[in-house]
Amino acid sequence: MTVEAEVRPAVARDINRLLRPRSVAIVGASEKPGALGASVLANFVRNDYPGDIHLINPKRETIDGRPCIPSVEALPDGVDLAILAIPRGAVLDTVRQLAAKKVGAAIIFAAGFAEGGEEGMADQLEIGRIAAEAGMVIEGPNCLGSVNYLDRIPLTFIDTDIKAPSPGGVGIVSQSGAMAAVLAVMLESRSLDLTYSVSTGNEAASGVEDYVEYMIADEKTRLIAMIVEQFRQPARFLALMDKAKAAGKLVVLLHPGKSSAARESAATHTGAMAGDYKLMRAKVERAGVVLAETLEELGDIAEIAARCPALPSGGTTVLGESGALKALTLDLAEELELSLPALNDDNAPALRAALPDFVPVSNPLDLTAQGLVDPDMYYRTLAALFQDDRVGTIFAGIIQTNPATIGIKLPPFMKAVRELKPNKPVIFGGVDEGAYVPAEWIEQLRAEGIPYFPTTERALRAIRRLSAASDRDHSRTDAAPASVPALASEHGVVPEYKAKALLGPLGIAFPKGQFAATVEEAIAAAEAIGGPVVMKAQAAALSHKSDAGGVALNLVGAEAIRAAWDKMFADVARYNAAIILDGVLIEAMGARGLELIIGAKNDPQWGPVILAGFGGVTAEILQDVRLLSPDMTKEAIVAELGKLKQAALLHGYRGSPALDVDAVADLIGRIGQLLRGEPRIQELDLNPVVVYPKGQGVVALDALMLVD
Amino acid sequence: MTVEAEVRPAVARDINRLLRPRSVAIVGASEKPGALGASVLANFVRNDYPGDIHLINPKRETIDGRPCIPSVEALPDGVDLAILAIPRGAVLDTVRQLAAKKVGAAIIFAAGFAEGGEEGMADQLEIGRIAAEAGMVIEGPNCLGSVNYLDRIPLTFIDTDIKAPSPGGVGIVSQSGAMAAVLAVMLESRSLDLTYSVSTGNEAASGVEDYVEYMIADEKTRLIAMIVEQFRQPARFLALMDKAKAAGKLVVLLHPGKSSAARESAATHTGAMAGDYKLMRAKVERAGVVLAETLEELGDIAEIAARCPALPSGGTTVLGESGALKALTLDLAEELELSLPALNDDNAPALRAALPDFVPVSNPLDLTAQGLVDPDMYYRTLAALFQDDRVGTIFAGIIQTNPATIGIKLPPFMKAVRELKPNKPVIFGGVDEGAYVPAEWIEQLRAEGIPYFPTTERALRAIRRLSAASDRDHSRTDAAPASVPALASEHGVVPEYKAKALLGPLGIAFPKGQFAATVEEAIAAAEAIGGPVVMKAQAAALSHKSDAGGVALNLVGAEAIRAAWDKMFADVARYNAAIILDGVLIEAMGARGLELIIGAKNDPQWGPVILAGFGGVTAEILQDVRLLSPDMTKEAIVAELGKLKQAALLHGYRGSPALDVDAVADLIGRIGQLLRGEPRIQELDLNPVVVYPKGQGVVALDALMLVD
Repeated sequence: MTVEAEVRPAVARDINRLLRPRSVAIVGASEKPGALGASVLANFVRNDYPGDIHLINPKRETIDGRPCIPSVEALPDGVDLAILAIPRGAVLDTVRQLAAKKVGAAIIFAAGFAEGGEEGMADQLEIGRIAAEAGMVIEGPNCLGSVNYLDRIPLTFIDTDIKAPSPGGVGIVSQSGAMAAVLAVMLESRSLDLTYSVSTGNEAASGVEDYVEYMIADEKTRLIAMIVEQFRQPARFLALMDKAKAAGKLVVLLHPGKSSAARESAATHTGAMAGDYKLMRAKVERAGVVLAETLEELGDIAEIAARCPALPSGGTTVLGESGALKALTLDLAEELELSLPALNDDNAPALRAALPDFVPVSNPLDLTAQGLVDPDMYYRTLAALFQDDRVGTIFAGIIQTNPATIGIKLPPFMKAVRELKPNKPVIFGGVDEGAYVPAEWIEQLRAEGIPYFPTTERALRAIRRLSAASDRDHSRTDAAPASVPALASEHGVVPEYKAKALLGPLGIAFPKGQFAATVEEAIAAAEAIGGPVVMKAQAAALSHKSDAGGVALNLVGAEAIRAAWDKMFADVARYNAAIILDGVLIEAMGARGLELIIGAKNDPQWGPVILAGFGGVTAEILQDVRLLSPDMTKEAIVAELGKLKQAALLHGYRGSPALDVDAVADLIGRIGQLLRGEPRIQELDLNPVVVYPKGQGVVALDALMLVD
Repeated sequence: MTVEAEVRPAVARDINRLLRPRSVAIVGASEKPGALGASVLANFVRNDYPGDIHLINPKRETIDGRPCIPSVEALPDGVDLAILAIPRGAVLDTVRQLAAKKVGAAIIFAAGFAEGGEEGMADQLEIGRIAAEAGMVIEGPNCLGSVNYLDRIPLTFIDTDIKAPSPGGVGIVSQSGAMAAVLAVMLESRSLDLTYSVSTGNEAASGVEDYVEYMIADEKTRLIAMIVEQFRQPARFLALMDKAKAAGKLVVLLHPGKSSAARESAATHTGAMAGDYKLMRAKVERAGVVLAETLEELGDIAEIAARCPALPSGGTTVLGESGALKALTLDLAEELELSLPALNDDNAPALRAALPDFVPVSNPLDLTAQGLVDPDMYYRTLAALFQDDRVGTIFAGIIQTNPATIGIKLPPFMKAVRELKPNKPVIFGGVDEGAYVPAEWIEQLRAEGIPYFPTTERALRAIRRLSAASDRDHSRTDAAPASVPALASEHGVVPEYKAKALLGPLGIAFPKGQFAATVEEAIAAAEAIGGPVVMKAQAAALSHKSDAGGVALNLVGAEAIRAAWDKMFADVARYNAAIILDGVLIEAMGARGLELIIGAKNDPQWGPVILAGFGGVTAEILQDVRLLSPDMTKEAIVAELGKLKQAALLHGYRGSPALDVDAVADLIGRIGQLLRGEPRIQELDLNPVVVYPKGQGVVALDALMLVD
């Protein structure tokens, strides 16, 4: 992986030679139906490719009446793109020859490289090296090629027929070639226009990041839909997301790997190590990416994002025609955590005026079957909702029945959108899936920017994903990175007393305490602190103090200190004779309170991240933690803490007092400053952090730090 | 509610007069297009209804050339069915007249009864009373009528065109008329044959239970799909499910009300109080019902259940063609808790032999694109899977691309099923939703018993629901109901010491203890027990002992007992002077352990149920409990306990010993015997129940009982 990263060229500027080639060479050209080389050529012919096509096959003089040359050597210099429709064994030599011929780019379909064992991996690395040296863009190996819909250029062996140059729309980037093709079919069947579809395969010399960069810069690509099993350049991808945001482009991502079984499978299948899904998720969502969890969701999210005048955000209003659907929608909205603003007869006068008396204002609305006798009601309802700022998204779940019935209901929707041009999404979902709705009617809805869904549930799931992304707090704290100069002399594990000494000045609260190198110092420290104290053995090599007998609680008086000291040194020596204690930490016994775990790490791939959650065995089983970005504002941190499963414990459950969540957020903010200021900190664990009632703060009882 | 239940007739035998009428009367017949009475008549005419049609309208002598009579009084006696296409205000009188004319059944469309306020409720009760007295079957009010697909009889104002008598299939029962119509459209669009569709509306005189009973008895109805917002006769429904099982018929149910918002909405909408969703769910699942959570799922489950040769059960094998889909499927299977039996090169030799060398045996399978050159591979793969007993269900997630591609892949599936006639489901799902697959090909798949799904995710969700239902342990314990004769003298709250005395002989373990009415008795009891004891104040009226100072822990010696006694009586008197203590309970202090809550109640609607889960505030927030049936076997109880979110704590987490789950199950089994033997027990709470390591049992520290 490191090798790949080092030799990878900055390919984005050269991707034009791959995706918009003025000339192409087909290595392994063929006229045998079904042969890859034949399918590639047929695609060029079918789509009227206007550039030069060089056919290479040592056994033929012509193919389909076109001249054929015997080898890459016979090519003119500087052809833009070569497509390698040849077996795996011939690939590496061919790439060398193409580089010598100053070919700008190459597509390698063959599999059996990094995913096929050591030899394949070595060959793949060599392909990467050649590409970097020659400044070639190489797509694959183990890919299905690309399609450029804007210029009608099919660079694949999959049968492709682009009827007309695309006006612009959705770009597809997928590591899996099969999934790129699947996604193209899915989006085209929804009448969405595509710009490019790229499958990166094993990413020997160009990865998803390169093509995303290209598409962000491409004016006609307005939305990027991705299927990625493993980001090879996470930091670059995150930086690109800033550019995407600046360019007003949304990136929707499907990333298998939630389950450990899927991560293992991806590793075998792609030859790449699978990363930490939760960390990836936290990071890309923070960067503004919308994550889909299934192919269904990917298509659904893409349709709404590509078609609506604005992205769903804020509350959703559901317009339905049945009480049972209303109840079902309430159930689903609760499960999805989809916010439905409360509308009623009193707070929504415009909506009240739009409806017949017997229809109460509510959300979801139950318009009953009244629309069949008063179809204009849909228009009036929409007009009222367009003007209501509480309503961010309008979803209509309509009973379609048959063409006669749905033919009454659709026109007022189209009229409302056409005349009133709302700057909020209107989305249409059928309640009775499979009802016959003529295709041209669905196209009419789409032409007005109204996505059509065959069911309400899938529409609501997609709206939920988009709303959550829109409503996520992406602001960045203005707290500066914090540096700790004294950290410079630390390496590896930093023992607790040193970690506390380093972190204390940043404003992280620890119990009142003192390091003691001798028992006399310990007695003096206990006296200075006052009250019962705890004694904790200190040494970088001692990471599990309790197991080694390295913690003594509730010590009062010199005698107790002395006895504890002797016992502790003896116990630790018995535990591991190689551990030499620096001394002990004497600390005040803290008051009890709710215990949190707050940890941090600087992931070599994704960068720094903070983990906050509930402590103890239960929390571990339940995985009741949140992953936070180190540049979040205090408000955003508080909001994230509120999403813990047991958050109720923080807010004063059953008569217990509300706890000092502000202080927890402050602590997390400080750790964020530290992580940003000191990238050498690889790990930091404050466990437990005791949280006291509001206004009384937090205290970290232990601190463990690992420095690069 | 009680009134309704008392006067409701046993209607099942008379439902033939409603659903298969030999003669009908349309009250409010009309020829005005769009009028309910006109639509009802048009439906009869369109579907060639062979029986007599009596039209009633005081203002017309003929309608569409048919004679019209002015009133119900002019009807001959004994018409089978009257359809009331008249306003709400005229309904009650008309029902009276119909009863006088010995009409067998009536359908009331009009709304505004129980859901419309007090007067409406009174009228509805009166309709119920008349129906009971006259032995009439009444459907509605506030319904959309019914359709009898078997005999081509449309009993609704919804445009209905039944091309041919149905050969038999799915019966629909829904309280909501709109949802019954929606479900009919959904199932018909999947080419599923229907038998009856019934909407029961407000259920004044007949409810879903009546029609379910009818359809269980109906030979041609093989599957019943239901949408119910509120069961009015839960116990009867549960009893009917035994009959359904005996008849080999599956019932699939969609029941809104998971969320409290939905329950409130249903109450306004139907005029019926919403029940406890979780209890309903536990009870109907125990009775064998498959619960769908969305309309999508209802349709998907119904299709598989209606079409496949057997219901999905056991492990599912997924046959795919891409590594990315494999990873996505593993993610989804984990989320759905769908079991995918582990198949590999070593343990599945038949499958190994069916595949090319470069395709490893795994589950999900990744067959790659090889099927395009070797389509027979699908046949060979299916043949191997048909013979493998580990494989209960086969799901193929196939990339369809276009008619040319899918046209290569489908035939081997059909051939395998046609020739090898597996007795396990084969289900087909498209990976690239929206790919053009000619409709007749989908029909060919269906004809072979292979359901077709446009996406893989929905198929897997439905398979999961059906497998979970098939694999649920429905066996009943042979432990006899346990009666406690001494309970006869108890009423209302039973104080702890009495409850323990009553329950102890059943084998429920409590701490060693003794009731003491005087301080001397208490001292003697403590001495007899030995070691430190706990003293607990005892009175039926004292339900929160701790709050009242009614618990004293860790008492040793006569002096401590005496002091605690005095303080306790004083504290309780201060807490509530009206409480007169019976005395105290002296018990041995128990060893600490994991604390569970085990409770039970006898729900007036659904009957007895046991709740088991983790104790404490965290568990309360997380709702980490299971609802258990009192007739479950020990094995089934252990399995249910294993589904608690924190179940890992029971099995020895992180070095702690495995706990005595067997003893927990025994305790729950005993409570089940008790609930079945003593229906007067309304509530029973053992909180906490302390669980000790394997072999060391459980002890219930407290017991609270409420008797009818």
